[in-house]
Amino acid sequence: MVHLDLLSIKNPQFLKKLSNHELEKLSAEIRQFLIEKLSETGGHIGPNLGVVELTIALHKVFDSPNDKFIWDVGHQSYVHKILTGRASEFDTLRQYKGLCGFPKRNESEHDVWETGHSSTSLSAAMGMAIARDLKKSKEHIIPIIGDGALTGGMALEALNHIGDENKDMIVVLNDNEMSIAPNVGALHNVLGRLRTAGKYHWVKDELEYLLKKIPAVGGRLASTAERVKDSLKYMLVSGVFFEELGFTYLGPVDGHSYEDLFENLQYAKKTKGPVLLHVITKKGKGYKPAETDTIGTWHGTGPYKIETGDFVKPKVVGPAWSKLVSETVQKLAREDERIVAVTPAMPVGSKLEAFAEEFPDRMFDVGIAEQHATTLAAGLATQNMKPFLAIYSTFLQRAYDQVVHDICRQNLNVFIGIDRAGLVGADGETHQGVFDIAFLRHIPNIVLMMAKDENEGQHLVNTALKYDEGPIALRYARGNGIGVEMDKELKEIPIGTWEVLREGTDAVILTFGTTIEMALEAAEQLARNGTSIRVVNARFIKPMDEKMLHAIFQEGIPVLTIEEAILQGGFGSAVLEFAQENQYFETPITRIGIPDRFIEHGSVSKLLEEIGMTTENVIKTLSSMIPKNKKVLRS
Amino acid sequence: MVHLDLLSIKNPQFLKKLSNHELEKLSAEIRQFLIEKLSETGGHIGPNLGVVELTIALHKVFDSPNDKFIWDVGHQSYVHKILTGRASEFDTLRQYKGLCGFPKRNESEHDVWETGHSSTSLSAAMGMAIARDLKKSKEHIIPIIGDGALTGGMALEALNHIGDENKDMIVVLNDNEMSIAPNVGALHNVLGRLRTAGKYHWVKDELEYLLKKIPAVGGRLASTAERVKDSLKYMLVSGVFFEELGFTYLGPVDGHSYEDLFENLQYAKKTKGPVLLHVITKKGKGYKPAETDTIGTWHGTGPYKIETGDFVKPKVVGPAWSKLVSETVQKLAREDERIVAVTPAMPVGSKLEAFAEEFPDRMFDVGIAEQHATTLAAGLATQNMKPFLAIYSTFLQRAYDQVVHDICRQNLNVFIGIDRAGLVGADGETHQGVFDIAFLRHIPNIVLMMAKDENEGQHLVNTALKYDEGPIALRYARGNGIGVEMDKELKEIPIGTWEVLREGTDAVILTFGTTIEMALEAAEQLARNGTSIRVVNARFIKPMDEKMLHAIFQEGIPVLTIEEAILQGGFGSAVLEFAQENQYFETPITRIGIPDRFIEHGSVSKLLEEIGMTTENVIKTLSSMIPKNKKVLRS
Repeated sequence: MVHLDLLSIKNPQFLKKLSNHELEKLSAEIRQFLIEKLSETGGHIGPNLGVVELTIALHKVFDSPNDKFIWDVGHQSYVHKILTGRASEFDTLRQYKGLCGFPKRNESEHDVWETGHSSTSLSAAMGMAIARDLKKSKEHIIPIIGDGALTGGMALEALNHIGDENKDMIVVLNDNEMSIAPNVGALHNVLGRLRTAGKYHWVKDELEYLLKKIPAVGGRLASTAERVKDSLKYMLVSGVFFEELGFTYLGPVDGHSYEDLFENLQYAKKTKGPVLLHVITKKGKGYKPAETDTIGTWHGTGPYKIETGDFVKPKVVGPAWSKLVSETVQKLAREDERIVAVTPAMPVGSKLEAFAEEFPDRMFDVGIAEQHATTLAAGLATQNMKPFLAIYSTFLQRAYDQVVHDICRQNLNVFIGIDRAGLVGADGETHQGVFDIAFLRHIPNIVLMMAKDENEGQHLVNTALKYDEGPIALRYARGNGIGVEMDKELKEIPIGTWEVLREGTDAVILTFGTTIEMALEAAEQLARNGTSIRVVNARFIKPMDEKMLHAIFQEGIPVLTIEEAILQGGFGSAVLEFAQENQYFETPITRIGIPDRFIEHGSVSKLLEEIGMTTENVIKTLSSMIPKNKKVLRS
Repeated sequence: MVHLDLLSIKNPQFLKKLSNHELEKLSAEIRQFLIEKLSETGGHIGPNLGVVELTIALHKVFDSPNDKFIWDVGHQSYVHKILTGRASEFDTLRQYKGLCGFPKRNESEHDVWETGHSSTSLSAAMGMAIARDLKKSKEHIIPIIGDGALTGGMALEALNHIGDENKDMIVVLNDNEMSIAPNVGALHNVLGRLRTAGKYHWVKDELEYLLKKIPAVGGRLASTAERVKDSLKYMLVSGVFFEELGFTYLGPVDGHSYEDLFENLQYAKKTKGPVLLHVITKKGKGYKPAETDTIGTWHGTGPYKIETGDFVKPKVVGPAWSKLVSETVQKLAREDERIVAVTPAMPVGSKLEAFAEEFPDRMFDVGIAEQHATTLAAGLATQNMKPFLAIYSTFLQRAYDQVVHDICRQNLNVFIGIDRAGLVGADGETHQGVFDIAFLRHIPNIVLMMAKDENEGQHLVNTALKYDEGPIALRYARGNGIGVEMDKELKEIPIGTWEVLREGTDAVILTFGTTIEMALEAAEQLARNGTSIRVVNARFIKPMDEKMLHAIFQEGIPVLTIEEAILQGGFGSAVLEFAQENQYFETPITRIGIPDRFIEHGSVSKLLEEIGMTTENVIKTLSSMIPKNKKVLRS
């Protein structure tokens, strides 16, 4: 049985004795294992198939956990997990209480740094290198970062610091020309030139020979000639960009050749100061459908059929939210040429491919660079353009200051599409989109919305792009709509208006987006025993429908708020603030939402159950709020 | 009278007719004007004296506002303000309702982009360039960015995008080797090499000559030789770093020579694609005390005596908060060698010079790079170090994601010193530290504190550095302590405990930090007419003192919260949430704090008055909360 070997691995020590030939065999086994296991669970197949040899070589040349591997983003850590004794847990990958899809410190001493968001590895590595030197210990610090993640501003900030401080560190640049989508940017071009330029070593030798041929010249030219020679010695054809920043550049190295990897890793191990080892890998290597993927379909997937590469599609009813929003933007862009789209490396995830095809000049994928994307949108808005900025909720965290300082403070007309808002499931705690309400609601000038279904969703997109009074943001969930009929004509929904979805007199639920169905279901069930619950679609999280709120509080009917977002400072708190400001103390208010802790991975339904966001709990909560005689509580 | 000319300027058109000689005279007048005016008002004297010729040259060569100047950070825009008709307003500079110290779109059509935080100009410029090209207009887009701001991650993200898209744009790199403190980082070294390398133009000519001397060679070497030639043509000695990123590098240019500036600006104006014009300026040029400043004392100042350069010190009682915190950290670092300090370019502002002198190996100034600084601290903490991360509240906004994802999610022992928390006054809306409670309070695992005075401040620093259970942050104000006696021995204050500063039975004020004095004063005044107000030092904003809160709410005594921070999602909201979660509906709660809008510049006392945070208003509010018969309100 091919897998037995992998399941018996306890730690990477066994690698030390293996020959290159045996390692080749191990690589094949690991690939087979990943292809089979991930066909069941889904996961980041492409990135992991690409780093099989690289990960094995790292564990053979270095001694983890004494030497420290820091996996940037971390979705490429599966091989590392297998080699550090976790193969047997892959059946539970990314499932509730199962193996995490990212490095996790409580899983293994070999996971020294947790990731999920990109571009953090170099800063973390620098912290570890400083600590090592202060403690006068000798371990190697090895961040492994992709060419996509390298363009994240914080990675560039770290390069700038590391190169200057001259710390011993081996930065492994895993260059596969794709992060999630094909990479973009000038740095990508730099790497492209390096890839085609061939190896540094032999060029250097020939260079010395050529330099000797430059004739000696006198006078003013002499110093130039010397400078030519000096400069050439360290910068020509090689990684001058990185050398300029203070790194020793090694590469490019074939990331699928053990011979090449060992030679260069050993050399890097002996080199003092920061080294940048440029490794070329092929994403999806060894599995044809993933290997031939050019747009990022096989970056992270659900289950698939191994033979055909067909995805096992979950049953869905409505359109994907990302698609609905992007298509509506596209439709409106036909009428309004001021509309442009900006994405930080998420053209596929945010479903902007069709927009890009129809409006290639009006689509800007800036790479993994949320800060730049956000302020770029602000710059566009100063010139009377209407930018649609599509960012996942969790990644918008990285542009908080740009939203505050550049967009909202200048009150610019930017439409922020907050994709993957709420729980995202398998990607886990680094990716849950649960903080956005709390980190946006307190910013002056912003309008924040969420739709009850895809039909209202298209109207809110229209509302956002017609709105000319400042920033406006729409949250939408990972996943799909609920399959409602779509209006042909787009409408504008008045800013700050809510809608009553179901009448009721015993209590009122204020909620929005994904939790509306649960609220309606709870109301329906309670109606069967004669309890009458009003359900309000609070589609404007800011500004709220104050007129309706006044009416509710004047009625004195108990209020339950539900949000798939962190409770502290969230929507429910906004309702509490409203009640306080208007001195409505008599009305009991209860809030349901995400408690004050990080929520790990698992299916969204499991997670909602764990935190008590279920129809049952809503019913229980409502029942406890309504006095037996159904009269409103007054003390 | 020397100033008359400046006061009569309406717009920069008059520059077009002036000779270089006349421009020299104008420069001298502007310098004199700035030195005199700023000696009265204070302001960013150093940066503005450095860009007198550069700003004049830009306005002569280009046509603002059609051509667009985007001033990065923006504190160097005073000369631009003079040339665009605002000289007469300098008496009100940075004062309440007066001239803003940064570009402001509602002040002038020549201010096309507002700044305050650094490193945003390139992204904004890219947005404007895209808009220009879509509209097929022809204006020049000219961001002016310092060498310090260039190391901010978002500026590097933007460089990466601009270089790739090949937009027409002239990036003026104002290289004065200092942003606020002396600059650091590998990029700074790159610029240093460029500065000493001399001009690009003549080197290029000589290079061509030398290249011709490389003999023709055959075989495998031929391609290398060709590559040598090709590479040299664009990269040698010049700004290879920027050329690699897709920019045409021009410079270095003497930023105080009109001849040099005009030659290069004209050349840049004609060049297609992105240009990086490297201009060398001297901060403080023309005013000896500022010119000879090597650490950043003259970056931004209060009023000073022109003849001597002595600062007109405002009367203060206690120690500066930054100094108190940094000195306490330094004291503790003597006993605990795990303590290290990290600052993003604020060694002077955060008063870490003495720490750096005593512990040069344990002090890390990473340049303007808040994200990297934050995750660097997280990396240090994984290795059992105790990092003290000193960041101004407003700049911590830029590291929100790093605080969430890297520090709090991994629950690492990082001590965040949130400097300049609350209103900061003259720097205005881009710098007010008013959002930190709202953007930190909802993050799981964090402890957030603020001290009532400098004595408690030192104990809370000690508490933070002894705390080993996760992230802990201390807010402290711009300005000074109140002059209390300091304990000799440092204490640890139990996490989550508040203290009653004054007993009272009619109402209770919950507040912390700077607003405590106002609360005590209000209580004192109310006591005179027999009203008894309890004042609580709510030094732990998170976690709150739940035991005390339960007691207060069980008493049913009216509660007033006061915070010098935005109300939405703030401390008062946390109190509302507590009351709701524990179903205390009977107690009236009122919140005083900063309303839902951006607060402009002015003295802190003026601003507090504007938003109703005064003793009078506290008294008025309390009076309205307490029923005439002094019995607790129950409906």
